[in-house]
Amino acid sequence: MRVYFGDTDGMGVASHTTYIRWFEVARTELLRELGFTYLELEKVPIWTPLSQVHCEYKQPAYFDDVVEVVSYLAELGHASARVNYEIRRKATGELLATGYTCHVFTNDKLKPVSLKKTFAPLHEALVAIVVTEGNGDE
Amino acid sequence: MRVYFGDTDGMGVASHTTYIRWFEVARTELLRELGFTYLELEKVPIWTPLSQVHCEYKQPAYFDDVVEVVSYLAELGHASARVNYEIRRKATGELLATGYTCHVFTNDKLKPVSLKKTFAPLHEALVAIVVTEGNGDE
Amino acid sequence: MRVYFGDTDGMGVASHTTYIRWFEVARTELLRELGFTYLELEKVPIWTPLSQVHCEYKQPAYFDDVVEVVSYLAELGHASARVNYEIRRKATGELLATGYTCHVFTNDKLKPVSLKKTFAPLHEALVAIVVTEGNGDE
Amino acid sequence: MRVYFGDTDGMGVASHTTYIRWFEVARTELLRELGFTYLELEKVPIWTPLSQVHCEYKQPAYFDDVVEVVSYLAELGHASARVNYEIRRKATGELLATGYTCHVFTNDKLKPVSLKKTFAPLHEALVAIVVTEGNGDE
Repeated sequence: MRVYFGDTDGMGVASHTTYIRWFEVARTELLRELGFTYLELEKVPIWTPLSQVHCEYKQPAYFDDVVEVVSYLAELGHASARVNYEIRRKATGELLATGYTCHVFTNDKLKPVSLKKTFAPLHEALVAIVVTEGNGDE
Repeated sequence: MRVYFGDTDGMGVASHTTYIRWFEVARTELLRELGFTYLELEKVPIWTPLSQVHCEYKQPAYFDDVVEVVSYLAELGHASARVNYEIRRKATGELLATGYTCHVFTNDKLKPVSLKKTFAPLHEALVAIVVTEGNGDE
Repeated sequence: MRVYFGDTDGMGVASHTTYIRWFEVARTELLRELGFTYLELEKVPIWTPLSQVHCEYKQPAYFDDVVEVVSYLAELGHASARVNYEIRRKATGELLATGYTCHVFTNDKLKPVSLKKTFAPLHEALVAIVVTEGNGDE
Repeated sequence: MRVYFGDTDGMGVASHTTYIRWFEVARTELLRELGFTYLELEKVPIWTPLSQVHCEYKQPAYFDDVVEVVSYLAELGHASARVNYEIRRKATGELLATGYTCHVFTNDKLKPVSLKKTFAPLHEALVAIVVTEGNGDE
């Protein structure tokens, strides 16, 4: 992902909310790599609203930088999951930010549901990729 | 409305999309002054998606400036409306931008509907405020 | 602050990044109540980039809700500060989210500086308002 | 470009400001194809603030849609330029929106300057690509 002018703030660097949008793109693509899309999930229905977001900013991302966002599943609960993120400047590999988002699996009324019971295929796919130790941003 | 840091871009002035968000706030408040909210309209259901947006930028809005947005109904059709906007720097009265948005009245499938037939109270209220001549930014 | 249509996402509730923007508005107004603006700080120069942001989402904010954001200074270091936030639905007082942002005081090259040495008036004002115990969202 | 959840609004379609951001990405890439970046331009210094933006929305872009944005230079003046855009749904080729942005070439004080005199290489490159007839969305 590239830093466009509209992503920068008055300091000429990517604004802090831009990183939070990059997290979203990364987890959407993580899901797609597993063979699922949010559109399918909505049909189940399974929604995945955020319960927490956390980001630690280490280095600024400058206008026109290309960044890489690595995301992985760090925790998987009955009705919840946590995704960790690392954002790096592509040209140099420098770590720009780390963070995580916690999600709740809910129905379309935003009530928590068991992922396993509600949509077993996704539960299986997530069990297979959850990183069980040394999980990331500590 | 005030220009916050997150509204500014790499030039230290309010980014061009910020004005478009101000338009939205202004027309929501215009509707509220008439005694209606979008929430009520959705229950009818009436939706008001944009068919056009236009903005002319005349002067930059600087960080921490307070701006005033005047909006008024410039055209009212069978299933459409046009709202004009003027954005001024409050401290000086300088005109910063003018613009308009065109809207279609639709049902919840985004199909155009007659506003008069679908929700007469809003139609009446709009007829009463439409500016019929010298309408603004032409 | 009100939830406008452009703040909502596909679930019809305020998107998670909207809360992060509300945090920014709240801390800007906190600074203004102390008699300072970011514009003045930039002239010193003192910048206050984020080193961390954290938000816990408890209840959704619906379209057209009015929310209140309370912010207070929870920690003040040599070259850093932490601001805590509570977001409530105004009509009911319900707690919608809590969170914090950590900031570094830097010069215009984004190098950390002592706030006390660089801009004593702000340091004094902040010392007077820092909440020294039971500081909020722990 | 893909429609992410954060790009959608309460109707589940890409919000009208998302299109304006897509325009920005498209013109940045148009410039890059010519061998220039905004970073270089800022060093000259040449800035390209918007004087106008216009967008006509024809069809909604749904969540997870991939869209293609074609942009081309429609007018080139002494100190100004106009870029036209067409946004299509990639899967079907449907035209979702057309629009344009007008820009002024300025120095770093936002005063208009002659592009030819200030940065001849870009002027030459733009002269070579300006579309002189049948220019698009009229």
